[in-house]
Amino acid sequence: MKHLISVFELTKDQVSDLFDLFIQFKRGRQEKLKGDVALLFLESSTRTRLSFEKACRNLGLNTYYAGAKETSLEKGETFYDTIKTLSSLGFKALVFRVPFVLFPYSAYLNEGISLINAGDGTHQHPTQGLIDLFTAMEVHGSLEGLKVLYVGDIYHSRVFRSGAYLFSMYSASVGVLGPKTLVPSDLSPFGVCCIFDSWEEAIEWADLVICLRLQEERFRENFIPSKESYFLQFGLTKDRYQKLRGFFMHPGPVNVNVDISEDVVYAEKSLILRQVENGVYTRMAVLYKLLKDA
Amino acid sequence: MKHLISVFELTKDQVSDLFDLFIQFKRGRQEKLKGDVALLFLESSTRTRLSFEKACRNLGLNTYYAGAKETSLEKGETFYDTIKTLSSLGFKALVFRVPFVLFPYSAYLNEGISLINAGDGTHQHPTQGLIDLFTAMEVHGSLEGLKVLYVGDIYHSRVFRSGAYLFSMYSASVGVLGPKTLVPSDLSPFGVCCIFDSWEEAIEWADLVICLRLQEERFRENFIPSKESYFLQFGLTKDRYQKLRGFFMHPGPVNVNVDISEDVVYAEKSLILRQVENGVYTRMAVLYKLLKDA
Amino acid sequence: MKHLISVFELTKDQVSDLFDLFIQFKRGRQEKLKGDVALLFLESSTRTRLSFEKACRNLGLNTYYAGAKETSLEKGETFYDTIKTLSSLGFKALVFRVPFVLFPYSAYLNEGISLINAGDGTHQHPTQGLIDLFTAMEVHGSLEGLKVLYVGDIYHSRVFRSGAYLFSMYSASVGVLGPKTLVPSDLSPFGVCCIFDSWEEAIEWADLVICLRLQEERFRENFIPSKESYFLQFGLTKDRYQKLRGFFMHPGPVNVNVDISEDVVYAEKSLILRQVENGVYTRMAVLYKLLKDA
Repeated sequence: MKHLISVFELTKDQVSDLFDLFIQFKRGRQEKLKGDVALLFLESSTRTRLSFEKACRNLGLNTYYAGAKETSLEKGETFYDTIKTLSSLGFKALVFRVPFVLFPYSAYLNEGISLINAGDGTHQHPTQGLIDLFTAMEVHGSLEGLKVLYVGDIYHSRVFRSGAYLFSMYSASVGVLGPKTLVPSDLSPFGVCCIFDSWEEAIEWADLVICLRLQEERFRENFIPSKESYFLQFGLTKDRYQKLRGFFMHPGPVNVNVDISEDVVYAEKSLILRQVENGVYTRMAVLYKLLKDA
Repeated sequence: MKHLISVFELTKDQVSDLFDLFIQFKRGRQEKLKGDVALLFLESSTRTRLSFEKACRNLGLNTYYAGAKETSLEKGETFYDTIKTLSSLGFKALVFRVPFVLFPYSAYLNEGISLINAGDGTHQHPTQGLIDLFTAMEVHGSLEGLKVLYVGDIYHSRVFRSGAYLFSMYSASVGVLGPKTLVPSDLSPFGVCCIFDSWEEAIEWADLVICLRLQEERFRENFIPSKESYFLQFGLTKDRYQKLRGFFMHPGPVNVNVDISEDVVYAEKSLILRQVENGVYTRMAVLYKLLKDA
Repeated sequence: MKHLISVFELTKDQVSDLFDLFIQFKRGRQEKLKGDVALLFLESSTRTRLSFEKACRNLGLNTYYAGAKETSLEKGETFYDTIKTLSSLGFKALVFRVPFVLFPYSAYLNEGISLINAGDGTHQHPTQGLIDLFTAMEVHGSLEGLKVLYVGDIYHSRVFRSGAYLFSMYSASVGVLGPKTLVPSDLSPFGVCCIFDSWEEAIEWADLVICLRLQEERFRENFIPSKESYFLQFGLTKDRYQKLRGFFMHPGPVNVNVDISEDVVYAEKSLILRQVENGVYTRMAVLYKLLKDA
């Protein structure tokens, strides 16, 4: 494992190794690596960015952060050239959040540098997928047969595209519920078994619910559903919360009273803050696995 | 003392402790704390932000900075959720500069995290108030009976709201001078004894003058006074400078030739650069007091 | 040597000392300095900024970065006041990228602080000039009589203004080729011996070619040449690349298919990534020379 661009590249053995490392770091294992990591975030982020920065520094790695407005991409530099430049500056790993698909750039990175995807457009968010998987493993132990329901804006969700595939790998059943316009037609690559039409059916079925963020910033046309009607149909209302058999997650940031009722965001069945906390250990596991032999 | 949101929460004993720490750090006392501090600055800042960063690192704390354009608040996350998230990421302290009132969020921060206000709208700027107080104490020794005059845009000034209260706590007399539209009607919570109408009276009275910044960026309506006329009436002109009995301060950034004549910004009676220098030690004192037992 | 604002202040002995340090750092010499460096970048940058940050941290210096949108300059603070403030915060060195001419501010910095120019408008970019010089020295050994050709937007190029002077200092011959409107009339301060009208002549002459960036962002009027015609006349096409006798450079970021054909940016005769790599060692040399006795 040299890069982490997409969960489709991961074997189950690799994921299990990452889970072991995650558990160990969470229990306090200390490791010190050497080197410099560049974090280039071309989309806004609080939790992912700070989480990666903490994971790096916990492992003794130096971090160099650059935000969207600060780079030469502003001056028309191509992304390919940015990558070549960062390579030549001597970084050991590049952590990228970008608004477009991050193809495997390994061919360009022939100098022993690891590339880590911190979210690329609507495509993949592998570390968030791993966080959600590991958090479910912590709570449920075995995932075999566990019924995992993704709810909301499936179409724009890189979190879904990474997480659903990982849950399927561990023999969980994955269902989806969302507005018809926001559920992609071909869900088979992600291991989805069931598409629900209403919360009523879905809530009966699900052992674990993962609410997604309505990503208005990605809607291209003037097709944003009314937030009130979206909440009524697909939001996690207080009423639905009470009927949940198990826990729920959300990758954050939450649209309060759109994705989830403000009354229940941090209620007892919420794993949201656990996900945030687990983010640092998950990213330590990924960084350590990618860089320890470098 | 767990948080520092407003000077109204501080007792005189606590302020005196902070002053002792300030003096010790300025004299070279070395202390090393452990942990991570997030600095979230939703308004522009050079001196306060760098001053806090230096204070943290001087004490061995790791800093994580995020500016206005980079956070999930951009994506509609509520500030409450940002705080919950930062808590779960494992920070020991959060330093916030925000454009709105920072209510005491201690109820949300039940995990041993300190919240420090680095300026919230027009409300409070407690560390700047402490800097001005400590700088006056260095220069004057006892503040009992010292006549401190705030001049300018009192209405928008969080520096005034924090500083005046602290000066009153130490039995200084606080006066104000400013355009009628920029002097709030109820000044009693801040211990103000006298409202002056002109520099002529005020300059006779004052032992120490604190010029404030005309904060055009906060004017809601098209009511910005002409800068020329503001300077003529309320600015520290060269002529007024010469009549000053004592020193003057300004929290920065100075509007040159509006707040203060460019000829005297760094002249002999100016404490401006002393304030900047004292900022680092003041913030070390605050951080150390809040975090040393955490 | 206390500051590095312009190459015109440098003696040949100082440049030779810097080259020796450059070589030593590139070979792995380790040095640890103590102190804090502020990097204030009022124009976008990836490579220069990260390169300076890495150089600082490689030498054990703490870095404090502030970008354009984050500083009090936003609130109308003068640059002079920003410098005075940063001085009082206790920084050992200030690294500035600014959109205007950075006059020698040594008079304002009477407290033992070094000022380093990381690119000021169209004026100077001394460390990039040194990078190009040192990279040429690595490749060619002696520069005596070496024919160095600068191609493109000479008028807006601070890289040219710094580099050409340095090449002349070492008795290289400097020629230029560019659109008539983008070649300044008086080139004598920079040691230019020849102005070419076409690639055909120039390519015969040159031992080393330095392509410059067409800096559209600096064009004041609506006078941007058509990029296609610019590329055809002044770009490094594949055909011209094949005729090159020696190597070529570009300070980056490259306008692909405007400055240089995408086919040859990283081809065999390209020194672009070597320049990036050498940037870190060059800046370590500069920082070490300026700060080691401070």
